[in-house]
Amino acid sequence: MSEIGTGTLYGVGTGPGDPQLVTRRAWHLIEMAEVIAYPAPDSGESFARSIVADAIRPHATEIAMIVPMRTGRAPAQDIYDSAADDIAAHLEAGRDVVLLCEGDPLFYGSFMYLLVRLRDRFTVEIVPGVNSLSACAAAQVHPLVARSDRLTVLPGPLDDAELASSIEGAEAVAIMKVGRHLPRIRALLTRLGLLEKSLYTSHASLPHQACHALADAPQEAPYFSMILVYKGNDPWIS
Amino acid sequence: MSEIGTGTLYGVGTGPGDPQLVTRRAWHLIEMAEVIAYPAPDSGESFARSIVADAIRPHATEIAMIVPMRTGRAPAQDIYDSAADDIAAHLEAGRDVVLLCEGDPLFYGSFMYLLVRLRDRFTVEIVPGVNSLSACAAAQVHPLVARSDRLTVLPGPLDDAELASSIEGAEAVAIMKVGRHLPRIRALLTRLGLLEKSLYTSHASLPHQACHALADAPQEAPYFSMILVYKGNDPWIS
Repeated sequence: MSEIGTGTLYGVGTGPGDPQLVTRRAWHLIEMAEVIAYPAPDSGESFARSIVADAIRPHATEIAMIVPMRTGRAPAQDIYDSAADDIAAHLEAGRDVVLLCEGDPLFYGSFMYLLVRLRDRFTVEIVPGVNSLSACAAAQVHPLVARSDRLTVLPGPLDDAELASSIEGAEAVAIMKVGRHLPRIRALLTRLGLLEKSLYTSHASLPHQACHALADAPQEAPYFSMILVYKGNDPWIS
Repeated sequence: MSEIGTGTLYGVGTGPGDPQLVTRRAWHLIEMAEVIAYPAPDSGESFARSIVADAIRPHATEIAMIVPMRTGRAPAQDIYDSAADDIAAHLEAGRDVVLLCEGDPLFYGSFMYLLVRLRDRFTVEIVPGVNSLSACAAAQVHPLVARSDRLTVLPGPLDDAELASSIEGAEAVAIMKVGRHLPRIRALLTRLGLLEKSLYTSHASLPHQACHALADAPQEAPYFSMILVYKGNDPWIS
């Protein structure tokens, strides 16, 4: 429970990348925010911040959480501890904090590491965002999942046996965070007879968005890439 | 390929229900639209239209697709044929058509029945929306899926054996369209030892939103209800 006089933590999804795909509520909260926090890489700009940069007040207090983007590593707990302390100080002083999250805050995001540290002490409101599943399906003008289909969402780093058994049990599959795993996943989907039903998308909704049949995908994939598989034998895939 | 001079079909997600959770692009397209189409029940108002009613021009041409909302029935193909003909006539005359879709257009929506009828003849753009997965997780302030978790999304009408095997193979589960299947699904999750990790949400983001532990859910569930299961043994579920 939050104490009287403390601020509210807003976990705000910024959507997949196009500033026009931010929700009205998220945009409004960012325009009004006096304190804004966001994840940022070691070097270069924060992707979440870049999406909504036009809405941020010139004199807003900004808290950049520097999160090293190395795959296969446990999250740097001390970074989140430190960021949570910074955010808590603002909340305790009665200031609301808007924490920006790429996509949707509760869909594979680092936001959860902050939430677990703060939710017992402060009021938290989540503003959901357009997640990457919906963004990639939209980019491809392709069904994500329909009717009584089962949809399985899988992180690309899972090993082949885990991926294969999950792919087996669903009509629709999304494989996230493809990145350097692309050649292996493409080989797996080929062995499973699904190559022709697989689509590759990177940077959905951004100017450099790329949409391909998986068979025609580039050799190297960025972290923000996804493979969609729709097994349905209907006019979608013809 | 679209012919020169024909209109564009916009498949526009209206999000889960709160008009503030509509994207900026969707809102703008609706404000500008001269022709708007949407699904509607036999009697009563269209849910998709109600979400964005404040953005619709007073003199817009509106096409209500009357879709009987009976569960367990094959979609009424002739209704979609007829609606596609109406929409095609506007597109052929050079008028853009904004087709409203609750949630996200490509995530379990009736939009796909229109898309399959029109995509080969006209330019189609999809505007993704906040889907119900993200909306329910936000309402519960609860993780949908994190880290290297596998997420499975299942329609509630699937039988117990199908549900059980899919639930088995994932760390995070969302069961959609719960409705009259609630007692059966609750019994199944209890047998699987997951009752205490299951959350029930109905009408996420609307004024009459309800969030409960599944154990405390009401006896009767509406169609727009969802069960989220997160198996993780971390502070989320404590």
